[in-house]
Amino acid sequence: MDRFYSGPGISIVDQESLSGQFLLQGDEAHHLVRVLRAKPGLRIELFNGQGFVAEGEVVAVKKNEAVIQLLRVWFEEKDRPALTVAVCFPKGDRLTTMIEKLCELGVSRVVPLISERSVVDPGEGKLQRLEKLAMSACKQSKRAWLMEMESPVEIGAYLEKDENCVLLDPRAKKRFLDVAVESRRVQKDLTCLIGPEGGWSTGELEMFEQKQVVGCVLGKSVLRIETAAMAVASVWASA
Amino acid sequence: MDRFYSGPGISIVDQESLSGQFLLQGDEAHHLVRVLRAKPGLRIELFNGQGFVAEGEVVAVKKNEAVIQLLRVWFEEKDRPALTVAVCFPKGDRLTTMIEKLCELGVSRVVPLISERSVVDPGEGKLQRLEKLAMSACKQSKRAWLMEMESPVEIGAYLEKDENCVLLDPRAKKRFLDVAVESRRVQKDLTCLIGPEGGWSTGELEMFEQKQVVGCVLGKSVLRIETAAMAVASVWASA
Repeated sequence: MDRFYSGPGISIVDQESLSGQFLLQGDEAHHLVRVLRAKPGLRIELFNGQGFVAEGEVVAVKKNEAVIQLLRVWFEEKDRPALTVAVCFPKGDRLTTMIEKLCELGVSRVVPLISERSVVDPGEGKLQRLEKLAMSACKQSKRAWLMEMESPVEIGAYLEKDENCVLLDPRAKKRFLDVAVESRRVQKDLTCLIGPEGGWSTGELEMFEQKQVVGCVLGKSVLRIETAAMAVASVWASA
Repeated sequence: MDRFYSGPGISIVDQESLSGQFLLQGDEAHHLVRVLRAKPGLRIELFNGQGFVAEGEVVAVKKNEAVIQLLRVWFEEKDRPALTVAVCFPKGDRLTTMIEKLCELGVSRVVPLISERSVVDPGEGKLQRLEKLAMSACKQSKRAWLMEMESPVEIGAYLEKDENCVLLDPRAKKRFLDVAVESRRVQKDLTCLIGPEGGWSTGELEMFEQKQVVGCVLGKSVLRIETAAMAVASVWASA
């Protein structure tokens, strides 16, 4: 059954609306009505990206709107503990692949890190496009929660406000797998920092040491940013 | 240091050639001479895709050739145990992303599976393009061994000749992580079968049961083919 995004604070969360109808508008309605040419009687799913999912039936289609009779609404808890991937964004297609795959793999939050050698500082427009992409990936993989996408932040400032960070570091001895298994066991959220392709600067490395950010390793290969991010997410999902 | 592919049975494996020179030709020479505009004195690495790697210095450049003075040759053992990913290929960009990432993550061998519902049966030309892509990914991630790429094979025929298979199955209870950890512990090669997006047919599922192919699961998400393949490779690399 195809799934459609209802928008954020939407009325499928109201118990009253259980017996009611929902008016799907905007891009999602366009996709349903124009692209899929939905007819009354079609069963679809709606989700609000914050845990609420509904099964519904199309009862009327207008030019760019569809009326959905809600049949069943349920709530899915957010996955706990949650993984945040804080990463210096790669360029172009590699960035879109990364965002799509991280969402599919159930990553809770993505933070674009600014470091001395990072090459991409995504602007507002690009972030909005990436959010849309993440929303599509959510639908594809039937996630009930949208992947959060933060505003770009300097690595130093980020470390000030998140104390659960580990660092991906090819020279480290500790395995990320063990860190992930332990975090899941004690139900503690985890953030994995992934640096730019040019590596961290000396100042940044000193900062990690000073703040006692634990370094850990994924395997023997040299990985590109987006591959490292996906691998971290895969190991977390499996742990 | 940039790495170049010397071709398969190349003379860098001869001890005699240690004091000798190597003539780089073809696409790789074109890249070195024309694209990177190498001058004599530049240090590069050569690898033959079968474990031999050499450090060398460019001593002469011609139109589409370069003479490399070999300075140091070493052999890297193949990673054991080895992971084979036998997968119904996805289409287009998703296929190229998959091949590139599997190579980066150190997968030993990729087998294109033909199943009743698979959509892509890669021809000779496409396989050659994918091999070239895998070779580039090898250089990027400094792998000394090329990722092997088999000819397409029917799932039934494949099961006849490979007895170390497990099956990715979202309904399974067993975790792929545990299978990977155990295989690595006992040093046994493993093949992971990944089905088409439309799922296996009833006949295929019966065959798996009859052959006692163990099903295992990656996480809670519904994953696309290429994401599942990369996740399997990531977990294996980390285990």
